[in-house]
Amino acid sequence: MAQKGDLMTVRQDVRVLDATLRDGGLANNFYFSDEFVNALYRANVKAGVDYMEMGYKASKEMFDVNKFGKWKFCNEDDIRAIVGDNNSDLKIAVMADVGRCDYKNDIICRSDSAVDMIRVATYIHTMPTAIEMIEDAKNKGYEVTCNIMAISNAKESDIKQALDMLGQSPVEGIYIVDSYGSLFPEQVRNITEMYMEAADKYGKLLGIHAHNNQQLAFANTIEALTHGVSYLDATMSGMGRGAGNCPMELLLGFLKNPKYNIYPVLQFIEEQIKKVKEEGAVWGFDIPYMLTGQLDQHPSAAIDCMKEGRTDYSSFYTELLDRI
Amino acid sequence: MAQKGDLMTVRQDVRVLDATLRDGGLANNFYFSDEFVNALYRANVKAGVDYMEMGYKASKEMFDVNKFGKWKFCNEDDIRAIVGDNNSDLKIAVMADVGRCDYKNDIICRSDSAVDMIRVATYIHTMPTAIEMIEDAKNKGYEVTCNIMAISNAKESDIKQALDMLGQSPVEGIYIVDSYGSLFPEQVRNITEMYMEAADKYGKLLGIHAHNNQQLAFANTIEALTHGVSYLDATMSGMGRGAGNCPMELLLGFLKNPKYNIYPVLQFIEEQIKKVKEEGAVWGFDIPYMLTGQLDQHPSAAIDCMKEGRTDYSSFYTELLDRI
Repeated sequence: MAQKGDLMTVRQDVRVLDATLRDGGLANNFYFSDEFVNALYRANVKAGVDYMEMGYKASKEMFDVNKFGKWKFCNEDDIRAIVGDNNSDLKIAVMADVGRCDYKNDIICRSDSAVDMIRVATYIHTMPTAIEMIEDAKNKGYEVTCNIMAISNAKESDIKQALDMLGQSPVEGIYIVDSYGSLFPEQVRNITEMYMEAADKYGKLLGIHAHNNQQLAFANTIEALTHGVSYLDATMSGMGRGAGNCPMELLLGFLKNPKYNIYPVLQFIEEQIKKVKEEGAVWGFDIPYMLTGQLDQHPSAAIDCMKEGRTDYSSFYTELLDRI
Repeated sequence: MAQKGDLMTVRQDVRVLDATLRDGGLANNFYFSDEFVNALYRANVKAGVDYMEMGYKASKEMFDVNKFGKWKFCNEDDIRAIVGDNNSDLKIAVMADVGRCDYKNDIICRSDSAVDMIRVATYIHTMPTAIEMIEDAKNKGYEVTCNIMAISNAKESDIKQALDMLGQSPVEGIYIVDSYGSLFPEQVRNITEMYMEAADKYGKLLGIHAHNNQQLAFANTIEALTHGVSYLDATMSGMGRGAGNCPMELLLGFLKNPKYNIYPVLQFIEEQIKKVKEEGAVWGFDIPYMLTGQLDQHPSAAIDCMKEGRTDYSSFYTELLDRI
């Protein structure tokens, strides 16, 4: 598959999305201090990041607002308190999860909202609902992308059908998502090729959302980029569920567009990430996450293993083998 | 560049080298307990690892034996105390550093030694000495490889000349070495292509030794592998100088040859790596190492930054910019 761009030049289609509050929120139940969120917003604006994802639009029918921080719900007022009229080039995004979002009521018209983009997250078997959500968001005036999650153990024929459905929808971006952190760059190349065929046919852009179970989140992100993917997800210090995500500081060190600036990211890390770790948030590569990644399993068993403080990795591995 | 092999099959030319004692020794001045080294030897044998590097053959004229653990010197007796007659398929290697090794005296004939392979490490400007050392080791009966270090800021024309010199020498393997952890997979692909041209011409094998400054040690190792490199360096839990190396547990999770077994590696990690960390050895990805990697600089400034416990990453970054 041909490479797009090189290490000396800039590709104008590339856009960076900061997912710290959303995926990082899975590491602390979305309990971020206002200071953290304000500093993150300012850092993203200064760093030239293109989108900031504020969190989930989770259903308050399904989730108790007293058991999660506010960024699981992303009330309009809470976003406004951070971004005001958002007089910046940074666009604001929220994630709407199929089956966990009252999108018809909770997503208002873009003209009344501080949000610019709705990111619909779906499994392969819930595509019809995803398409309905995409159409709803588009009709309300939003830019819309779609994450098809957990593709590493989906059938290629099903993925192709999902891509055709998305191709015919008004979605702008289609994300390659390595939910289990199980993919190798060689596989990311092949998957990008498959997704690109649909993207080219229907005039869509592609995105990549990677996890770090095998220390490949950054490598897989730039591998997909090199082969034509445009939307790149990253989080500050890789904050995210389990092994975490592609670290923003690595990604901005790679990108050549002069609009990106690593310096405010370094300042944010030294001022805020240390604090959020002291408050108890834990994420990052560790052997249990590596093992679920290698075995292409959901990280939940590894998250439990870490919470219990287990370091009997060989026994844990044997347990995982029984789940294949 | 064409890919060699794929994710479903086995390439018989691949061989894994455990560099824990040698590169990891840079993280604890080679003060490993005998228990650690014995357990490492047994783990490597059981895991199907092809080579175990015991450490350096450092000159006792130049280095004080009282200031380093014994694996900086790799006395024959010390190796024998661990491996005995080495009745296993695991081959034993040591590293001989150009300008820091009395190779004429300290490297004895292979027939009298427990060592199977000499790994000559050189800079691009010390190639003539490296060639002499390669010939000396070959004449003494050893398998010989050569690491050309710090190539990320060497001129391509100089690298090509060095490859021609090595091609005409009796060396068996030529290593691509990312000393500063600054290379991206795309660059590793291009460098592999350049090295492979010489390797094919002269009938040599290639190797890869990666560092984890940008969380790319594993990614770069499998990228080089995918494009035809045979000798793969790894260390247990990535133990090594600064950001460390390609972790053995990730590499064995990737390789498909049934002779490799991750289980003894997991056992070794849970039993020994925790202890060596408690004893004070520190390594692994951190922001200062990332920054020297991104700026293609020697990690020494980052190592100092870490030792001083500094977390003012943005100031450290500004200091590094003054060194370019």
